[in-house]
Amino acid sequence: MIERRRNALGSAYRLFYENPVHLVKGKGVWLFDADGRKYLDMYNNVPHVGHCHPHVVEAICKQIGTLNTHTRYLHENVIELAERLTAKCPKELDNVMFSCTGSEANELALRIARTVTGGTGLIVTDYAYHGNTKAIFEISTEDIPADEVPDYVVTVPSPDTYRDGLDADDYANHVHAAIQLLRDRGIKPAAFIIDTIVSSAGVITPPGHYLKNAAEIIRAAGGLFVADEVQPGFGRTGKNFWGYEVDDFIPDIITVGKPMGNGHPIAATIARSDLIDQFATHSQYFNTFGGNPVSCAAGLAVLDVIEQEDLQANALQVGQYLTNGLKALADKHDAIGDVRGSGFFKAVDLVTDRDTKEPAPDITVSVVNALRSNGILTGSIGKHDNILKLRPPMVFSQENADFFLGVFDEVLGAITSPV
Amino acid sequence: MIERRRNALGSAYRLFYENPVHLVKGKGVWLFDADGRKYLDMYNNVPHVGHCHPHVVEAICKQIGTLNTHTRYLHENVIELAERLTAKCPKELDNVMFSCTGSEANELALRIARTVTGGTGLIVTDYAYHGNTKAIFEISTEDIPADEVPDYVVTVPSPDTYRDGLDADDYANHVHAAIQLLRDRGIKPAAFIIDTIVSSAGVITPPGHYLKNAAEIIRAAGGLFVADEVQPGFGRTGKNFWGYEVDDFIPDIITVGKPMGNGHPIAATIARSDLIDQFATHSQYFNTFGGNPVSCAAGLAVLDVIEQEDLQANALQVGQYLTNGLKALADKHDAIGDVRGSGFFKAVDLVTDRDTKEPAPDITVSVVNALRSNGILTGSIGKHDNILKLRPPMVFSQENADFFLGVFDEVLGAITSPV
Repeated sequence: MIERRRNALGSAYRLFYENPVHLVKGKGVWLFDADGRKYLDMYNNVPHVGHCHPHVVEAICKQIGTLNTHTRYLHENVIELAERLTAKCPKELDNVMFSCTGSEANELALRIARTVTGGTGLIVTDYAYHGNTKAIFEISTEDIPADEVPDYVVTVPSPDTYRDGLDADDYANHVHAAIQLLRDRGIKPAAFIIDTIVSSAGVITPPGHYLKNAAEIIRAAGGLFVADEVQPGFGRTGKNFWGYEVDDFIPDIITVGKPMGNGHPIAATIARSDLIDQFATHSQYFNTFGGNPVSCAAGLAVLDVIEQEDLQANALQVGQYLTNGLKALADKHDAIGDVRGSGFFKAVDLVTDRDTKEPAPDITVSVVNALRSNGILTGSIGKHDNILKLRPPMVFSQENADFFLGVFDEVLGAITSPV
Repeated sequence: MIERRRNALGSAYRLFYENPVHLVKGKGVWLFDADGRKYLDMYNNVPHVGHCHPHVVEAICKQIGTLNTHTRYLHENVIELAERLTAKCPKELDNVMFSCTGSEANELALRIARTVTGGTGLIVTDYAYHGNTKAIFEISTEDIPADEVPDYVVTVPSPDTYRDGLDADDYANHVHAAIQLLRDRGIKPAAFIIDTIVSSAGVITPPGHYLKNAAEIIRAAGGLFVADEVQPGFGRTGKNFWGYEVDDFIPDIITVGKPMGNGHPIAATIARSDLIDQFATHSQYFNTFGGNPVSCAAGLAVLDVIEQEDLQANALQVGQYLTNGLKALADKHDAIGDVRGSGFFKAVDLVTDRDTKEPAPDITVSVVNALRSNGILTGSIGKHDNILKLRPPMVFSQENADFFLGVFDEVLGAITSPV
């Protein structure tokens, strides 16, 4: 199967794990492989309300058997979903434009920002991921080779207070410096864009008033603040519905994607209508599949389930329980340098030495593969690939947390203290 | 409803028709509005095998209730779909990479072309549409304002033999000239990209050996030939499965989208594995939703139906019947300047004068709206917006054609010969 796959899909694809998983079924927080083995899914945020949630499946199947067209005909679903999304935002963010992927949502955000500001300059955190299209690959500092970063893209440090020892003001000063660098190059700033949980660099809750200050700084320079909510959005962080709400400010544009349709390809760019109005004088927007009745049925059903099953509160409560459990394990295992994150978006920073905070990528890859062997799916992130990322579906329970904590304890013990 | 939509979606969206259609149901070639009125769909190519085709609906619903993950786990569907797609291509085109939209498929094609060739220059026909992301908007010469076209994008005339009176060699010479222009600017060519039925400029079957010659010319200059098959692909032109097959050559990359999942967001970039291998040394590729088990189930089901219901043959046969009917109407109505296209992708070029070929946009907009009032959905295209575009689902029958031809006859008579 791996060979057939390699022949047909080519060499640019990769598989997770030393021993890849062949999944055939999913239900709630569980995934099942072809041999009937089950895995606790602590990796996938896309099946936000749980794999194959019956309410979402039913909504999609009902609509797909009835009508699936596009936004150039009138349909209730696209209007209702736009209204329900803006109801989750401050009143200033009153327009929604639909696309299919986070890449497309970010593409549109940058097109709007560049059109409205007349600038081209972009400021982005280092080691970020925002998507795979050309303009978004250019700001996906995790992936793009340093010598290919265009002169209109300037990076600022991810606000990693654990490793850097800097504070919110220090990080905001880097935004100032980035604007100055763009100006030195003769480039007008268009936007500051940030994944508001700084996922790729290690799941970092932006400290203090970093976001608010960054927004003030970019606006003073004539640019916009774009909050990439593709990963932290939809209640995942527990305390808030959007990641940016850790600070007291309102972004100009927010982008959403992955969890929005529980796996159905749907994404959106939510912005102030005055920005959209200015953009519209320059360009119409049409996305063949974006905002179609089926995609919107999926989006509506996901919002239903989040509300009906009170999943944001679950993320807050069980997320805290998980944090407590991880912190208790840190008392026992020196390899745990830091436990951070919020709700159901957690990071365990693994180190070889707590004082020097020397990253432990070897331990991390062993942990990820051992967890997989023990029926738990996770992944690793960070510049040094030494951070265990925990990001389960929102229906993850205290019982699931106990199962994970027990296995993680054993696995970490076996790896870090070999006989 | 229009006001709610305007408030929630903003001003960059537009609706079809003076009197927009509020659709609630679709079945085969028919769409139904909220008042129970039915419309013959001669516009939508996305529901390729017919609205809400039961085989496709069933395949999607079965998979979506079973498992929906991504390409970093093993799954049979993505492998099988890639194998079945490459089986529809010459053996040289042996790798498939999945995304969600035509924009994304073209983004990836250009990223591959630029990485492999080391060039940035792109040659594209004038008045083309390839998508809405930044890099693709730059080559969507239908939409981008002329003063925003970057210096690495050079246009060549759409091969519109009806209006220009040029031949295949003349058009190929323009590709030569475009390469020279790029070189004069110090830019290395990366690719020539063309929608192989030249849809936006008026549904044009590339004449003679234009495509083959263009491929030879771009390759001699170190670039690649990208066939955008998003619209003509999947048997729509009747005679061939892909649009480029009107000529005797093999593209380096082909991109597919719209009809591929019958409305489910799925797209792909099909390329030679040596190109993918070179690209992979530079960059991995991951698309969260691209190639997921549900999208691939949709893609497989669409291929099943095309084969089981022999829809390519239907497009050829009924398409020819439609052409004959339209040509008969041209004997009666002077406003019909030209009837062209292939299979179920037809254009009726409406003019005020057959000798001067003066475009008749006023007649065209009246025809489109009158057809809508009479229960037939179509649209208009072309630089002068004077071309009626006919692009029905592939299950369109001879009876449907007769219905359309009768109404079109009446409508055209009423509009062009007012009492």
